[in-house]
This record gives sequence, C-alpha cells and structure tokens, in this order.
Amino acid sequence: MNIDTLINARWVIPVSPDNLVLDDHSVAIQGGRILDVLPSPEAREKYTPTHEQDLGKHALIPGLINAHTHASMSLLRGLADDMPLMTWLTEHIWPAEARWISEEFVADGTRLAVAEMLRGGITCFNDMYFFPDVTGRVTAAAGMRAVVGLIMVDFPSAWASGPDEYVHRGLEVHDQFRGNGLITTAFAPHAPYSVSNAPLEKIRTLSDELDIPIHMHVHETNEEVKQGLSQYGNRPFERLDALGLVTPALMAVHMTQLNDDELQRVADAGASVIHCPESNLKLASGFCRVVELLEAGVNVALGTDGAASNNDLNLFSEMRTAALLAKGLARDASVLPAAQALRMATLNGAIALGIADQTGSIEPGKAADLTAVDLGDPETQPVYHPLSQLVYATGRDKVSDVWVAGKQLLRDKALTTMDTEEILSCAQEWRARIAESDRE
Amino acid sequence: MNIDTLINARWVIPVSPDNLVLDDHSVAIQGGRILDVLPSPEAREKYTPTHEQDLGKHALIPGLINAHTHASMSLLRGLADDMPLMTWLTEHIWPAEARWISEEFVADGTRLAVAEMLRGGITCFNDMYFFPDVTGRVTAAAGMRAVVGLIMVDFPSAWASGPDEYVHRGLEVHDQFRGNGLITTAFAPHAPYSVSNAPLEKIRTLSDELDIPIHMHVHETNEEVKQGLSQYGNRPFERLDALGLVTPALMAVHMTQLNDDELQRVADAGASVIHCPESNLKLASGFCRVVELLEAGVNVALGTDGAASNNDLNLFSEMRTAALLAKGLARDASVLPAAQALRMATLNGAIALGIADQTGSIEPGKAADLTAVDLGDPETQPVYHPLSQLVYATGRDKVSDVWVAGKQLLRDKALTTMDTEEILSCAQEWRARIAESDRE
Repeated sequence: MNIDTLINARWVIPVSPDNLVLDDHSVAIQGGRILDVLPSPEAREKYTPTHEQDLGKHALIPGLINAHTHASMSLLRGLADDMPLMTWLTEHIWPAEARWISEEFVADGTRLAVAEMLRGGITCFNDMYFFPDVTGRVTAAAGMRAVVGLIMVDFPSAWASGPDEYVHRGLEVHDQFRGNGLITTAFAPHAPYSVSNAPLEKIRTLSDELDIPIHMHVHETNEEVKQGLSQYGNRPFERLDALGLVTPALMAVHMTQLNDDELQRVADAGASVIHCPESNLKLASGFCRVVELLEAGVNVALGTDGAASNNDLNLFSEMRTAALLAKGLARDASVLPAAQALRMATLNGAIALGIADQTGSIEPGKAADLTAVDLGDPETQPVYHPLSQLVYATGRDKVSDVWVAGKQLLRDKALTTMDTEEILSCAQEWRARIAESDRE
Repeated sequence: MNIDTLINARWVIPVSPDNLVLDDHSVAIQGGRILDVLPSPEAREKYTPTHEQDLGKHALIPGLINAHTHASMSLLRGLADDMPLMTWLTEHIWPAEARWISEEFVADGTRLAVAEMLRGGITCFNDMYFFPDVTGRVTAAAGMRAVVGLIMVDFPSAWASGPDEYVHRGLEVHDQFRGNGLITTAFAPHAPYSVSNAPLEKIRTLSDELDIPIHMHVHETNEEVKQGLSQYGNRPFERLDALGLVTPALMAVHMTQLNDDELQRVADAGASVIHCPESNLKLASGFCRVVELLEAGVNVALGTDGAASNNDLNLFSEMRTAALLAKGLARDASVLPAAQALRMATLNGAIALGIADQTGSIEPGKAADLTAVDLGDPETQPVYHPLSQLVYATGRDKVSDVWVAGKQLLRDKALTTMDTEEILSCAQEWRARIAESDRE
C-alpha cells in the first residue's frame, strides 16, 4: 500500500496505553494522520512510503504539548531575574510591555518562541497574550499547532480598550481560525485579580455556547488568595466556582494554593490543572499539590510559562523538574514516575486543551504530531529503560526530528519552515531597543 | 610577545571578583596557565599567539567543577528508577556492583563519564569509588582534572579486603599520583553508617599528616541520622565532630539533615558542604539548608552525584536546580542569584577540593581550565544579562569548547583526546551484560 511517510524507530513510546515501550516499531503516516503503528519488519513489507526515515538510536514519542506559555514574551527573556515578583513585574516587565507591545512585537516574539519550542520537541502550545490573531498566524505559518488565548483583562492595552472590546476582538479571532486544522482558541481571562465578575460571567456563557475552553492563572501565589479574600470576601477559586467557571472546560494554571476542599472540588468538577514547576520555583510562588491531584483523578498537564519568568520553553526540563520536585516534597522516590511525567507533557496536555481527539498520543487516527529523541550520545548511554532515560537523562538538545500533522518541521535538528538567522537578528534588534528603555 | 593561545570571547566571566562580566575580553594562555585577561583589542596588539580562537557569541567561564560523583557508575545509568532508596540499592545497584565491579568496569565507566562531563563543560571532578587508581589514570589520559577518592568502607570489595587494606591501597594511590599536575587525592570514607570509628580515626591522623582532604557522604537522609542515634547514641555529624573530622579539610556531601547547632558548627569549623540538589530530590532524601549555610559563611559547592541515581553528570542543570529550589523553599525569588550559583559550580568547588590555587576562576597564574558557552542560539536569545542566561536559559548542550591546563579537550563540540565511538560501543556491551544479570 502506498503511503506518505514511514518512520522506523528503535523505540516507539505511544503514551497511550500507559508505560508501553515498543521495540523496533514503525509509524505509518497518510494524509497527515497516523495510519498504523506496527513492528518495523512488518511495516516494510506492508507499506510503500514516499518518504521513509530510519531512527536507529531514537525514541519516537508524541509531540510535547506546552500547556501554558506567553510565547512572545521570549523577547523579554532574562530582562530581570533574581528579584521579588512585584519588583520584577512593576519595575521591569510591565514598563517594557507598556512601551513595546504591538503586532510586530508579538509576531517576532512568537517566531522566536516557535523556533525554540520546535527545536525542543514541542508540537503544540497553549498561549495567553495580546494580539492572539498574530500568534495564531505566525504559528500556523510555521506549521505548528497552538491554542491561542482570547486574552481578557480589566485594564486597557494595545490590543483592546476594555472588557467589551476584549470579548469582541476575541470572538473575531475565534471566527478567524474556525476550521483551521492547526489553530484553535480558548478564552484567556488573565487571573482572578485582574478580571472582574461581569466579564467572567460573559466568558462563562460564551464558553458554554461555543464550546471553547477557559485558560486562566488561578491561585498562583498566596498573595493572590489574600487579596481575593480582602477584595471579594472569598478565596479566588471559590469565587470562580460560584461564577460557574469550574468545569471540565477550565484549565487552571499554577494552583499552588489549594486546600483539601478545593483539591477535591477540582477533581469532582473535572477541571484540568496546568502545573508550571520551574516558574513556581523561580518566582517563589509556592508548590502545587501535584501528586495528590493526580491521585484524586485530576488531569494535570505541564507548562513552561513564559520565557520572561522561567527563562526557557523547555518541556523536557519541566518533566524532569516535575518528577524530581514531587519526589522531594513527598519524601517518596516512587511518586510521579517517568511514564507519568511524559503523559503529563503529552496526552494530559491534549486533554486539558480539548484536542485529545487530534493529538497527545501515537494512535491511529490522530494527527501525526511526533518527536524523535536521539538516545545514542554519551549523555544517554547505556539505555536500560527508554522511558526513564527520556525523563531523567535526556534534554531537549537530543531532539532530532519533529513532525506536526505529518509535516516534518525539524529535520536532523534544522528547522524546515523557519529562517533561523532572520529570527536571531530580529531578536538582537529587539534586545537593543528594549535594553535601552529598561535602563531609563 | 609570543604566547601559546589567545581566546577572544564576547563575554569573559571570571567568577572572581563576584558578579563581573567583561565585554569583548581575551584570555592569554602560556605554559598551560592563564597569563592575562584583558580587552580583546589590547590583547591583539600585545600578544602573538600560536593558537587563536574567536568566540564571538560566547561566554567564557571557568571550567565547572563537579564536587561529588561516582564516575564509573555511569554504566548503571537508569538501571533502576522511581523506587525507594533501599529497594534501589539492595535489589539493583548493590547486586550489580557485587557482580561487575572490576578494573575494566571502572576504566570503561570513567571513560564514559569523562566524555559526558567534558562535553558538558566540566573540567574537574571529585570522585568516590573503587579502583581510584584506574579512575585517575583514565582521567589523566584524557587530559581532565580530578580529585580521586581513596575509598574506605567497613566491608570487603573487589578493591580491598578490609579497613587496613583500604588504607594501604589508598596510600599507594596517593603516592602514585604525587606530582601529577591533573590528579590529586582525597580520603573518601563512604559514610558514617558504613565506616566505623577506628578507620575514621586513622584517616583523620593521615589527613593531618599528609594534608589530604576528606570526602564523605554525611547526613544524606533522616534514616541515616536515626540509625546513627540508635547505633552510636549520637547523630552522625556529632560523632564525626567528636572524632575530629569536622575541619576545613572536610567535604561533607548532601547534608540534608542539619539542626541549627550543626549548621553553625559547620560554619565555625570551616568545613565545606557539597550540595547535590537533583540527587536529593530524586531519591527523596530531604532538603539541604543551602541559603542558611551560605549566609553563615559556609563554602557550598555543587555535585551531580553518580549517574546511577541522578541520572546524568550535568552541572548546568544542578546550578539551575540549586537556584530554583532555594528560591522555592525560601519563598523568596531573590535568594541564590545566578552569580552565586555559578560560583558554587566553579570557585567554591575548587576551594572545597583544596585546589583553589590551581583552578576555579579565570585569574592570572591559575591553570587555564576554561569552558566556552555559545549564547547565539534561539534558546538563549536575546541576551540582556549573560550571567543570568548561563544559569536560567542555557544548558550544557551550548558548551562548544573546553580547555584543561591550556589544552583544548573539546573543540566545536568534538572531543579531541577520546574516541567517542569506542566509548559508546563499550557502554553498549556493558549494557547487554548488566541488563541480563539485573533481570535474574
């Protein structure tokens, strides 16, 4: 049978079913979708591919899903570090944003972020930022998958003048990407402290009507909870729940402050939690109760957060940090094993984003979103258990090839749809401008 | 003036003095030592080098010092993960060690570890394992620097039959490397629970007489402290102190269990602490009070621990984890800033190992142990603050060039003194043998 592409890998790790490592297997791709997963000798008999790729030292895994980021903030990477959250925000990030955010900033920043993510094995990201139409267009042009956030905050910005215009422009963006095979949308009210009740109620109604998920920072810090108590008389999560926002459509990001009742309520409601372990550590925000959430049956996915805080978009590192930190905090080396960390970075992300029918695992019928990881270097030898190696010994630098919807976007570490030199010179131009204004 | 080598870098970060980033500077090397650090235009006028290297997008930093590892255990990397410490040790690691440890195992494992460390910008490591003579020979042959541990445990091994022979063979190894420019030695009593008082007293006397530092796991877990209390009637650290081992010569590794008195005593005694954050997390051992130790004036260095537990020898990752974890635990984003993390991975390591007159910073008179890190890729652009970028955005994969004592051991990511293919095929042969026996 003639097919588009056949990838023969030393190991195929489909993520679903759990914990499965297939030796010397192949993935057959036709029309951008996974057609078959089978032993390589059989595959070579059965299929006649237009393209064939042998990955003799590699593990082939589902493309990683970065379930929370602010892509274009990559232009602010490392602008300010090692300072308390409010100093960082009020003296550096907010002034830079107020001065520089524009279509051009978002386009150039997204391009830099997409290049970094594809080089690191990420095939899909869940974004929250201004000018989501630009983020979507740039991402689709590179062939990558994304859920772009229809941003909403109470205060005006270069993107919209106030709640009504945020909603209006958001719905325009939603319409713009309707039917797009790579870009979907989510409502993205920024946080409980930055969006008041009326717009949140409107978002809830629209989310129900249009079947759009909701992407929101929730309980990132203890200060947020305290402020919510003083301003609204209840904890932010309680307030969101009273407004009807705690449903399977909710992607609650960070969630470092959860009491027992809230933890159970997240599970009962079927909401997803997006865990950003390195951002929470670096900004000293607190610790998400990941192991308990998973035990309660909550869908927990992984995000990098933006590069301005974190300071990279490295989901291999987040997997590892999530696993290590969970063990350390639980005082139990057996919690959050490697297979679970990989699932959080792939299938759980797809579930949270509402696109698990399309991506997140290597299963026939899903889009061919795939990442090949070379385990043949000294850093990852010998290989006793490929799954463990992926999480504990490998880094994103071992990613060699990436496909999204069957199209190869990274070939032997080179981007096929982006001009790396142009992206770099553009980042350097922004640096000159932004550094100048940060010193003022 | 004719010199051996001139390296011109976009940034030179000498580590001493603290927090200094020199733009467009050069390092002049003569006879394996740093002769001069000066602006590149001046350097090009002043010196006529035999070798010259331009690193236009790079930060040049002191070679990293891995202050605690078990190099040859790299052959057991990922053999067993995600299990409680005692299951891991008794059912997997100890049986594998009992069966496989030999000169050949240590030679092949050390070679794999040295290749990984050099590729990752590490120029010196502090080792603790059997057959330290082999570790020293293999390391010196590759041109790398190491402090090899004169291992001591109460039980017999393939290396020695009991305490007397451990001491005897250790002193032979010490003599063997006397005058060697790259290899020095440390006594390496394994841990308080595995070495009894008589050999510890002997080591203390010999350490004083011969001026050899002492490298030891101390207070790695709470179980160790409990066991010490029940067996000896005091906490292990207290016992070591009573035996006279807590001095500036002590490198106490892990130290996750420290009460206030012990913390102050470490500071007063001038002992060094070797912090292994990722090992402590992965084995769920506890948290070292790093920030308080640093505030008390203790010299804290960083180690990777062995690849069997950790599962890599990646000091960039340990720097980042040390900084992030300290912030998260302290609930303060400003503690353990980037410059301090880099100092822990370089100069503090050299101080702990007793070789700060030789290495650990870029200063005239010291050996030219240097690491070049390419900051020109999308993952590390834009660059606002090179120091911050090194710790929070860079990985070891950005290391391009490494020199030890002026000799280039890594050139544009290729090892110059080691046969990578042979190392890899050797690791795969060991894997076949060891995996077979682990399944039995």
